[in-house]
Amino acid sequence: MSDQARGLPPKVTVLSGGVGGARFLQGVLRHRERTGSTTEVTVVANTGDDIWVHGLKVCPDLDTVMYTLGDGIDTERGWGRKGETWHAKEELAAYGVEPTWFGLGDRDLATHLVRTQMLEAGYPLSAVTEALCRRWLAPLFGHALRLLPMSDDRIETHVVIDDPESGERRAVHFQEYWIRHQAAIPAHSVVPIGADRATPAPGVLEAITDADLVILPPSNPVVSVGTILAVPGVRDALAKTAAPVIGVSGIVGNDHVRGMARQLLGTIGVEVSAAGVAEHYGARNGEHGGVIDGWLVDTVDEPLVPRVEAAGIRCRAVPLMMTDHDATADMVVAALDLAGL
Amino acid sequence: MSDQARGLPPKVTVLSGGVGGARFLQGVLRHRERTGSTTEVTVVANTGDDIWVHGLKVCPDLDTVMYTLGDGIDTERGWGRKGETWHAKEELAAYGVEPTWFGLGDRDLATHLVRTQMLEAGYPLSAVTEALCRRWLAPLFGHALRLLPMSDDRIETHVVIDDPESGERRAVHFQEYWIRHQAAIPAHSVVPIGADRATPAPGVLEAITDADLVILPPSNPVVSVGTILAVPGVRDALAKTAAPVIGVSGIVGNDHVRGMARQLLGTIGVEVSAAGVAEHYGARNGEHGGVIDGWLVDTVDEPLVPRVEAAGIRCRAVPLMMTDHDATADMVVAALDLAGL
Repeated sequence: MSDQARGLPPKVTVLSGGVGGARFLQGVLRHRERTGSTTEVTVVANTGDDIWVHGLKVCPDLDTVMYTLGDGIDTERGWGRKGETWHAKEELAAYGVEPTWFGLGDRDLATHLVRTQMLEAGYPLSAVTEALCRRWLAPLFGHALRLLPMSDDRIETHVVIDDPESGERRAVHFQEYWIRHQAAIPAHSVVPIGADRATPAPGVLEAITDADLVILPPSNPVVSVGTILAVPGVRDALAKTAAPVIGVSGIVGNDHVRGMARQLLGTIGVEVSAAGVAEHYGARNGEHGGVIDGWLVDTVDEPLVPRVEAAGIRCRAVPLMMTDHDATADMVVAALDLAGL
Repeated sequence: MSDQARGLPPKVTVLSGGVGGARFLQGVLRHRERTGSTTEVTVVANTGDDIWVHGLKVCPDLDTVMYTLGDGIDTERGWGRKGETWHAKEELAAYGVEPTWFGLGDRDLATHLVRTQMLEAGYPLSAVTEALCRRWLAPLFGHALRLLPMSDDRIETHVVIDDPESGERRAVHFQEYWIRHQAAIPAHSVVPIGADRATPAPGVLEAITDADLVILPPSNPVVSVGTILAVPGVRDALAKTAAPVIGVSGIVGNDHVRGMARQLLGTIGVEVSAAGVAEHYGARNGEHGGVIDGWLVDTVDEPLVPRVEAAGIRCRAVPLMMTDHDATADMVVAALDLAGL
């Protein structure tokens, strides 16, 4: 297909969550490779899922992106390290220390030990991430791929639930809602605690304002992309950038493809559909100060295209199943097309 | 043998290092079991080997005693957990973080994570040790066995060496000397840093003064028992206690049975022999303020008995090879005999 030869512009920035964002990025990098492009890709990753557990700082989205792109991920599970063992976790449970529901693998532990020790020595998370990526990403991509946390400040997404045991309303860490409760209980609200006082990490705003293309991958619009957008300055940078901003729907046919967006979209009052999410993000030049110029929906959602376009957002329906890297790369081509690049 | 029926007195306190002390304690507990005794055993363990590594507080001697008596030890290796894996260690090395020579197992990591988190929450090491022992020792021994760190204060034994690479004289942590350099380079001196400003942990002095029998097991006289003796107050308690104090030689026939006592005895100017160590500990009522009343040497060292007795220390030669728990329990019987109990 001639479309496959459509090159990436020099600077592409992707605002990413964990698994969905990481898989989309594999498509970006595949397309970069198959077009022989010299594009620099910057990933701004959500850190609202970060959690201190057993005295260690764990950054699930940063690590999922790093391990996935660095060929260290367990591809079946989608998170954590391949060849992983769980002996430390077993022993922590034997000591009776909480939480027992958090998936802390033995190999993964090394990442958290290095990160925690660097943070405690005074390095900001962005410097720590750069150091960790020196092992995972630099050997494969050199300067062509940068992974930035959205902020060096502590931001933790909490979810307000009715405690299933006591019945009392309380806020739990997103990880507790997601892993322990499997998002199977109603969420009354989602609060990115600390986001309002946070500043973007070094390079984040520049990565958006200096980009030639900004992509919102099919990550969770509430707790992944939504949390990045909650960092003061990020929405302004998206409004100002000369780059087109293209979003890719993670909702296909009224449900998420993976993850738990459905549950959380309901919580924030957004219709669980590709059109609902597009309207939630909003047109960049619209009166409500939205963030996207274009929106890709899956072919099954073709009937929603006129509704999205009526909201002032260019829209196109293409296959959005990330079945392999080439299929995902074709989604990137569609994004380039929609961006007029 | 009728000797095997000789019961333990109500309170026995053992000043222990790691592997040798732990094995000796297995004999104490075996003898307790085979005589149906209700004796309370208190272990005061050396913490001079403790090290902060990868942001975690590791207490090798406390853990060796805890795992050994709690049936969690790797019996072939003598330290660390049985069924251990080393994935976190592999990954730490892949990140290029030092030290790479320290043996941090995946299961073992859980102990260090719990300990570090409790220490950082403000609990003293003695409280942390008690909490860890609730898993390992309480189910097996109830209140019959207590494990105390010698001090809650940070004490770290350093060894002065000529750096094998630079040739410069410098002090390295005991673990670096022992594990990294395998004690294969000359040690100019051994310094228990922090010991002079330390206080004994709660219960340590009482465990000595209130005991009916105090035993110095065949642990390293320099960096295990020697470090415990360096904590202010411990020597005084040993001088004051009404209990007999019996030592067991770890040197048999001019070398250590296990460990690296030979190398370090030379460093502090002590003859590498069962008699040399006995004289170094000194007679409790002697003019130099020694710490032992009696001393067990191996049968091969029978010719040294008169020399030890000439130093004012009761001495007896018995088999000192801890080949199994019963053989070790027989050493305990010999200690009781020598103590006149």
